[in-house]
Amino acid sequence: MQRMLEPNASGVYVIAATPFHDDGAIDTASIDRMVDFYLGCGVTGITVLGMMGEAPKLTHAESLAITRQVVQRAGLPVVVGVSAPGFAAMAALTKDVMDAGAGGVMIAPPSTAKTDDQIVSYYANAVEAIGSDVPFAIQDYPLSTGVVMSPGVIRRIIEQNPSCALLKHEDWPGLEKITTLRGFMREGLRHVSILCGNGGVFLTHEVERGADGANTGYAYPEMLVEVVKRIKAGDRAGAHDLFDRHLPLLRYEQQPGLGLAVRKYILKRRGAIASDAQRKPAIKLSKETVADVEFLISRLEARGVL
Amino acid sequence: MQRMLEPNASGVYVIAATPFHDDGAIDTASIDRMVDFYLGCGVTGITVLGMMGEAPKLTHAESLAITRQVVQRAGLPVVVGVSAPGFAAMAALTKDVMDAGAGGVMIAPPSTAKTDDQIVSYYANAVEAIGSDVPFAIQDYPLSTGVVMSPGVIRRIIEQNPSCALLKHEDWPGLEKITTLRGFMREGLRHVSILCGNGGVFLTHEVERGADGANTGYAYPEMLVEVVKRIKAGDRAGAHDLFDRHLPLLRYEQQPGLGLAVRKYILKRRGAIASDAQRKPAIKLSKETVADVEFLISRLEARGVL
Amino acid sequence: MQRMLEPNASGVYVIAATPFHDDGAIDTASIDRMVDFYLGCGVTGITVLGMMGEAPKLTHAESLAITRQVVQRAGLPVVVGVSAPGFAAMAALTKDVMDAGAGGVMIAPPSTAKTDDQIVSYYANAVEAIGSDVPFAIQDYPLSTGVVMSPGVIRRIIEQNPSCALLKHEDWPGLEKITTLRGFMREGLRHVSILCGNGGVFLTHEVERGADGANTGYAYPEMLVEVVKRIKAGDRAGAHDLFDRHLPLLRYEQQPGLGLAVRKYILKRRGAIASDAQRKPAIKLSKETVADVEFLISRLEARGVL
Amino acid sequence: MQRMLEPNASGVYVIAATPFHDDGAIDTASIDRMVDFYLGCGVTGITVLGMMGEAPKLTHAESLAITRQVVQRAGLPVVVGVSAPGFAAMAALTKDVMDAGAGGVMIAPPSTAKTDDQIVSYYANAVEAIGSDVPFAIQDYPLSTGVVMSPGVIRRIIEQNPSCALLKHEDWPGLEKITTLRGFMREGLRHVSILCGNGGVFLTHEVERGADGANTGYAYPEMLVEVVKRIKAGDRAGAHDLFDRHLPLLRYEQQPGLGLAVRKYILKRRGAIASDAQRKPAIKLSKETVADVEFLISRLEARGVL
Repeated sequence: MQRMLEPNASGVYVIAATPFHDDGAIDTASIDRMVDFYLGCGVTGITVLGMMGEAPKLTHAESLAITRQVVQRAGLPVVVGVSAPGFAAMAALTKDVMDAGAGGVMIAPPSTAKTDDQIVSYYANAVEAIGSDVPFAIQDYPLSTGVVMSPGVIRRIIEQNPSCALLKHEDWPGLEKITTLRGFMREGLRHVSILCGNGGVFLTHEVERGADGANTGYAYPEMLVEVVKRIKAGDRAGAHDLFDRHLPLLRYEQQPGLGLAVRKYILKRRGAIASDAQRKPAIKLSKETVADVEFLISRLEARGVL
Repeated sequence: MQRMLEPNASGVYVIAATPFHDDGAIDTASIDRMVDFYLGCGVTGITVLGMMGEAPKLTHAESLAITRQVVQRAGLPVVVGVSAPGFAAMAALTKDVMDAGAGGVMIAPPSTAKTDDQIVSYYANAVEAIGSDVPFAIQDYPLSTGVVMSPGVIRRIIEQNPSCALLKHEDWPGLEKITTLRGFMREGLRHVSILCGNGGVFLTHEVERGADGANTGYAYPEMLVEVVKRIKAGDRAGAHDLFDRHLPLLRYEQQPGLGLAVRKYILKRRGAIASDAQRKPAIKLSKETVADVEFLISRLEARGVL
Repeated sequence: MQRMLEPNASGVYVIAATPFHDDGAIDTASIDRMVDFYLGCGVTGITVLGMMGEAPKLTHAESLAITRQVVQRAGLPVVVGVSAPGFAAMAALTKDVMDAGAGGVMIAPPSTAKTDDQIVSYYANAVEAIGSDVPFAIQDYPLSTGVVMSPGVIRRIIEQNPSCALLKHEDWPGLEKITTLRGFMREGLRHVSILCGNGGVFLTHEVERGADGANTGYAYPEMLVEVVKRIKAGDRAGAHDLFDRHLPLLRYEQQPGLGLAVRKYILKRRGAIASDAQRKPAIKLSKETVADVEFLISRLEARGVL
Repeated sequence: MQRMLEPNASGVYVIAATPFHDDGAIDTASIDRMVDFYLGCGVTGITVLGMMGEAPKLTHAESLAITRQVVQRAGLPVVVGVSAPGFAAMAALTKDVMDAGAGGVMIAPPSTAKTDDQIVSYYANAVEAIGSDVPFAIQDYPLSTGVVMSPGVIRRIIEQNPSCALLKHEDWPGLEKITTLRGFMREGLRHVSILCGNGGVFLTHEVERGADGANTGYAYPEMLVEVVKRIKAGDRAGAHDLFDRHLPLLRYEQQPGLGLAVRKYILKRRGAIASDAQRKPAIKLSKETVADVEFLISRLEARGVL
């Protein structure tokens, strides 16, 4: 059953890894296992084929198969990363994944979009390409895209495109942007969900500023779920206490590029996937890094994962 | 019949446009017409799906169909741009276009490749992905990719990859790079072809420095062909005289982004394609720009296209 | 006598080189000689300490001494490049050069200015730092700064800052921008001068679109002066005929980085400066490049410099 | 007394803020107070005029005055950031600050240095400009400069320049780089100090990988000092326990741009400086951000600053 991405999405939309066998083939058994693991953590949605999902290493057919399998297993809204160098591939993938039951797509601006107007136009063109009936998320990730979107630009995109349902917020620093956007919404801007990336490193503060939750792939998603819950329930101290126990590992996992290898290592260690293999190009963990991660996990477990 | 890209390629490998109908559908009749036009101009090879070929606006199936049609019509080596955000799409497209009779592929480095080693590794991984039996061209175009390859880096790529057949040279300034690379080859580096892009704006000097010809899409390819011939025949003054007559238009056509619209306008005007439509995102020529182009063409025609 | 930069500036504001002795000391005798040379070419203003003036290689005291000498010799408006990583150095240099008789300053945005608002704010802060009584030029040169200013952003800067007198236009492509800005001015935007850089490679078209002239340092400034005159006098064919004779050399001189070495070589050859030495870091002309330049000059002289 | 930067530097070289009065004038009383504060924290060196020291907002004379005052008060090696768009300003500032008693200078590569050779050449030219007798630090901060230096490039800089004494390491991820460089040194590369920036966010791991300490400006420098000591004394758990208590605030303070405002706020709160004013352009803390910081400090104090 197709569960759509709605502008009131909240909780944790986990960014899913893509599990491979050691030989690079897609590990379909692990896809089910991983989805079950995420469900067990209490996530409210799943984003597949994001930057951390090794999307560019997949063919169109593989991307589609993964989406279909996750949709069928999860029973939750599934958002699919469809950013592409051109609208043809973006539109083709969008059509196919929506037919396969996805609930929406996520689109990052290209590095060639420089001025405010260019960014706004890009989203207008993208929506024309994918269809205005497909719910979409703006991925606002300047560290990776090089594109800086002011709050005013995001407002214009929301105003012009009724199908915009979600801001995946990962500007850095980004707390003031959340405050500003929520201010716009109090003053009349249509409400869209704000779910936060950046590895979760500012999650408590982000939710306190008005974000609806997380949209990241930290290997202990149950912590993200619980922190969002506690903040919303008014248990600020409890939220921060839990979050702070995870922060040393969270920060280690957030290292650009390297983070995916760490994340897969932990997901494998926790039994969520069978192998931590990545397709090339891949960063392999050194023995020193493995030792760091194990040390951080041992400290986390000693203090309590939840 | 499959004509392979060889490391002794020379003359003009024209960068082909992709003809569309006004409604955005691929204009297959114009593909034949355009290929015939290029053949009539005396080109020795054709590069399809380059940056100017609107490659990112095409689906995989379309890319393949265009390649197949050009290969069958041309009877010349056809090089296919396969640069992609990941190796899966690159390998898949390479396999299919080579099966369809392409003679080789062209690969630009991603903007994330920063250090010398990262660039060299990228090409090693790309060759592993596409297969070491597929002749490939390095696209060295820093203005677009942001990646600066020193002559030493290009040497390492040539040394490590026997399937490297061609350098599409469009660094700017780039004349010293040609001189340096040819120096390396005199001292023992394996010979690969150097064909030059940058809209052809430095073609005479490039060939004088040792380049084998052009790899660009100027809408009067017969001039490129003739200039290369004259330089090689020792007619330096004749080459420059002809080239200089074209330079005002050549320079106008080389404007980033805008250039493709100008090029298609002229190709249509010359009867090579039926429509100058581009798929979105597209730059549309203003009436002032059309007037500029017409003025420049009238001056060129008054002085002689050849 | 202090001649101020006015919003009705026109003709050619030549970008001056900074002459050094072979040992790197400033060659004050050549400064006078060079200014006389420029005056003899018919320039209407002089810009010193631009990117091509090796400004970052000069100390504050040297920058000031050069400005003072040029002002005294020229009797024309002298604009001084004061772009700096911070407002303290910018304000200090501005104060001193204006006291020394400069007519205005030129400011490029920093690469950190990304959004429309950030660019507009930057100029507001800069004007606050240098004083709102100092006429200033916006340097719009995305190829070098990485900052893309939409026409709307330039309009906002002009509207907010009465001391904005000049747009040094060197966006590429940039003709539509001139047309758009002149459209704004017909509709009520305050008139400011538009003088064009980009090495002069589009000068005829730029003036036809409404630019007031050139703001570049081509080593034959008399051509720039004459072309602007002819266009304004309605002699389009004559302007293009003259321009086209220079275009091969103009294009060669416009190569990024290398261009300054070529320019100084020609200025020395023409007797305008005694040495073509640059301070480090400097690009030295190879014998092949010198041969190219001599060949292009011989062709130009055979056809007529004016 | 001049204390020189030596290649065996260790401990914490704190990155000093530059204290201003509310009206933007330099607050010399606070400079002494701040130096005393740093000394009380146990730092072993002080870096002034770094990116966080608002260096571009200072005139040459101010930069020199600040350096002189810090040198006289501190009695420790003082390293001065001298990165500049050109070698003239860099050399002039270096000469003056070394005459004023500085122990060395810090140099970041310019964003125009792209290839390995260009980066290595840049440092060769810089050393020629400042003099080969001046100890210098490489600032390796790709997030800010855009320049990625491979370990091999850093090795070449160390090998070619005997005056290279320190690597200010703030690549991200960067732990493997430390491991690789220390491997080079075990195999014979001359030892230079490695002190780490990045706000201190990876300090424990960095020292465990072989770094000699920290080179950052966190507003609780006593923690940095103590953590380095504990790691070196073999008290790994004690180091991490202390570090983890600070990590929530450390991470908050490390936000690009915003971090300086937070840092000055805390330094003022702790009595180290009288005002947290910044010169323009400055980020002002919102009331929400102040509340965040106060909350994080209250949690830190409840758990123990040391």
